[in-house]
Amino acid sequence: MEKTIASITKPKDEELKERLSAAREKLATLQIKVKEAKLPVLVLFEGFGAAGKGSVLSKIIKNMDPRFFHVETMDQPEPTELRKPFLYRYFKRIPENGQFTFMDGGWMEEIVRDRVHEQLDEEAFGKKICSIKRFERTLSDNGCTILKFFFYIDENEQKKRMEELLADENTAWRVSEEDLWQNKKHKKCSEVYQTYMEQTNQSYAPWYAIDAKSKKWAELQILERINQNIETALANSGRAVPILPNLFPLSPIPKLADVDLNKELTEEEYQEKLEKLQKRLSELHNVLYREKIPVIIAYEGWDAAGKGGNIKRIAAALDARGYEVHPIASPEPHEKNRHFLWRFWTRLPKSGHIAIFDRTWYGRVMVERLEGFCSENDWQRAYNEINEFEKELDDWGAVIVKFWVQIDKDTQLERFTLRQNTPEKRWKITDEDWRNRGKWDLYEDAVNEMLQKTNTTYAPWHILESNDKKYARIKALEIVIQAMEEQIKKKKNS
Amino acid sequence: MEKTIASITKPKDEELKERLSAAREKLATLQIKVKEAKLPVLVLFEGFGAAGKGSVLSKIIKNMDPRFFHVETMDQPEPTELRKPFLYRYFKRIPENGQFTFMDGGWMEEIVRDRVHEQLDEEAFGKKICSIKRFERTLSDNGCTILKFFFYIDENEQKKRMEELLADENTAWRVSEEDLWQNKKHKKCSEVYQTYMEQTNQSYAPWYAIDAKSKKWAELQILERINQNIETALANSGRAVPILPNLFPLSPIPKLADVDLNKELTEEEYQEKLEKLQKRLSELHNVLYREKIPVIIAYEGWDAAGKGGNIKRIAAALDARGYEVHPIASPEPHEKNRHFLWRFWTRLPKSGHIAIFDRTWYGRVMVERLEGFCSENDWQRAYNEINEFEKELDDWGAVIVKFWVQIDKDTQLERFTLRQNTPEKRWKITDEDWRNRGKWDLYEDAVNEMLQKTNTTYAPWHILESNDKKYARIKALEIVIQAMEEQIKKKKNS
Repeated sequence: MEKTIASITKPKDEELKERLSAAREKLATLQIKVKEAKLPVLVLFEGFGAAGKGSVLSKIIKNMDPRFFHVETMDQPEPTELRKPFLYRYFKRIPENGQFTFMDGGWMEEIVRDRVHEQLDEEAFGKKICSIKRFERTLSDNGCTILKFFFYIDENEQKKRMEELLADENTAWRVSEEDLWQNKKHKKCSEVYQTYMEQTNQSYAPWYAIDAKSKKWAELQILERINQNIETALANSGRAVPILPNLFPLSPIPKLADVDLNKELTEEEYQEKLEKLQKRLSELHNVLYREKIPVIIAYEGWDAAGKGGNIKRIAAALDARGYEVHPIASPEPHEKNRHFLWRFWTRLPKSGHIAIFDRTWYGRVMVERLEGFCSENDWQRAYNEINEFEKELDDWGAVIVKFWVQIDKDTQLERFTLRQNTPEKRWKITDEDWRNRGKWDLYEDAVNEMLQKTNTTYAPWHILESNDKKYARIKALEIVIQAMEEQIKKKKNS
Repeated sequence: MEKTIASITKPKDEELKERLSAAREKLATLQIKVKEAKLPVLVLFEGFGAAGKGSVLSKIIKNMDPRFFHVETMDQPEPTELRKPFLYRYFKRIPENGQFTFMDGGWMEEIVRDRVHEQLDEEAFGKKICSIKRFERTLSDNGCTILKFFFYIDENEQKKRMEELLADENTAWRVSEEDLWQNKKHKKCSEVYQTYMEQTNQSYAPWYAIDAKSKKWAELQILERINQNIETALANSGRAVPILPNLFPLSPIPKLADVDLNKELTEEEYQEKLEKLQKRLSELHNVLYREKIPVIIAYEGWDAAGKGGNIKRIAAALDARGYEVHPIASPEPHEKNRHFLWRFWTRLPKSGHIAIFDRTWYGRVMVERLEGFCSENDWQRAYNEINEFEKELDDWGAVIVKFWVQIDKDTQLERFTLRQNTPEKRWKITDEDWRNRGKWDLYEDAVNEMLQKTNTTYAPWHILESNDKKYARIKALEIVIQAMEEQIKKKKNS
């Protein structure tokens, strides 16, 4: 790294001053174009302790309108954050369209720290880098401009700066134990930083090593890079993005038309099994809690297929303090203005808890596809993005169960009519339900494609034959229980 | 408490079963009416450890549709929550209109625990109770139905239940150290609970002591109370609420028409003072951080009065990692569906940090009043609700500075025209700005009323004469610095 930095030549003072003033002015203009083009911009400030990230950042934002940016200072994770997938706290903070997010210390800091302290071995480190690359790529594919700055200062400069900070009681708190340790292991840290940067240097999320010895010079390097990248992004805005081929292991799954919907249970079979299974699920909930295993149960299916009643039979066995049902409606403005998975990332449960989604992220490849709420390129890309998302959940150790609740068209009509004619149920049926019914065949094609492209071995789909709701409920309980038992066994053996 | 509980007679099994089934059905019907009437409902589950709050709650929600409720389990506060006013974590979780929030262990648990462990003395305990009463009242006044249930079991029953839980490794985690301690000090705890309940038993937020020995019986008591209270609320919905007289100390403040707008600074005076003051502010930011003093700076003022530029001069002196500017636009649906202060409570800074609001909660008594976005009763009540809100901030130890940025009508016209004619500034001016200008006199009356009714001694208004923006910026810096210095002194002396 030292050599990379040495090759950057600081301009003369006068030139620096001139370029700085031009770059500041340019950013002030570009921020408005960013707003207008609804471009999200994510800028990462990483690097050595005491390298001046904070003070340079303070200068950068002076050229900007507070309506257009957020600063996120990444302290140590909160206890709740530690009980989520490691990308959670970063995904949560991605910028809204038209806004900048400046992140002071991001995912690089976290995983390099864990690596140098040997809390991550070579393999785990490689896996995290893989996750990070996917994360950065999916943001970029969805229109986000990403810039990553690495603030470099050498060992002596770092030492000198920390001594200055420590000398004043009002600034001493800025120097952490970690900073002091880092200074002692400057060479080792440099090496790990360098490895990390080499592995995550992508055209959609480039690394810029910054000579941070002079603050003005650091500011200029950053401003010019930001301006340049924004101009490129503006010129490219609205471009289609290559669709990545799927690399995850898929299992075969039948087409909806081939599903046998004649399965049913008698009332006695149902009651008997229901009681037994709910009792078992209730016991497992305690074990999951103790073992801190997170559970994600995702429901998709036709309107009036019986999702609600099915969820109720699962929920009835659970302790209210350990699960949440998330009914997913159309996104609010602040949700629509971010990556489509944002509102699901932010609803993930804590480890040991259960989240049940009544409709899910698969809306992207069903309703959003069919109603034109996103471009074709967007939903085509989404299959892989979803598989990657679920891969993160799997790596985190989650039980993932995805249900498609299936009925035939006649059964839907019967249930719609019943709802319409029953006063207490009338709120459940809307004009939109009837409109969607009109598009049954289009939906069926979309669902078949979705099932085939996202039926990964680590997050499989299960079709619930729900012409007989009782049959579907028992089957759901059995699948959930089995998936939990397997994960508990796996965790105990690991 | 024992006596209150003893006076509640459990019905015979058959009657219990019948009433239970009727009450469950009724709640299922009422939840839809609650949704339609956009009524928020907050239900608190408090009481002794192992009294069965969680399992009764699990049963209650079985009768409900997951779209209509949330369960909030209040664990120990996270580090960030501890750096906010104590009501923050509760205010954050208030229900949306048309929704139930069930809170398992709320503010009673927190402050009674602190009291029995003697972390709160008599006086501090009294102060918290005062805050809580205001909190509950303001929710109720804004249409929220509040029910508070206290789960009572006697010492022996509690002991027996904990022993059962501890005997199974899968349930042992449910018994906390605190629960064990509580059992030993059952009598003392009962007394503090009793005191707390007596002091916070209000018609708008009643306490119901529940005999929790039998779970079915507990469920019935709760269901019937919830149903009854919802019916009352539905019958009363849309009613006007008495306007409380102001009890907080107010200072006199001039009317806008009497403000002398001829104050100005030369460019040299301005530059000299600006540099000196920004340097001082920058130093103070470090001290505030170290002393963990939170700062709230609120900006209101005419369109084009120079709020943005004024804020910029404050922000320029601050470290990016320690402050945030919150530009306040019209609320999103999830914000509009809650108490009007919710979106400000959730934007409060951590202690040691600075939040600058570009437009504020005073929108309630200006734009919302004049545009009819809330009822007259709503905005009339808001003066006191705002004074109470700011009292919480003051009790928390915050520096509170409120600015009204004042210009005259001619100056506004000049600046509007300039914006319209300057391409880079045109985004700053909208048709709405012109419409608002047309209502200048109405706004002026509203602002005068607002200034007079909310100019409390603990959160005073400062009028910034901003026909000369330079004068206004220097004055703002001076006021902010002075307020910070006073609070630092106060904290050091305490």
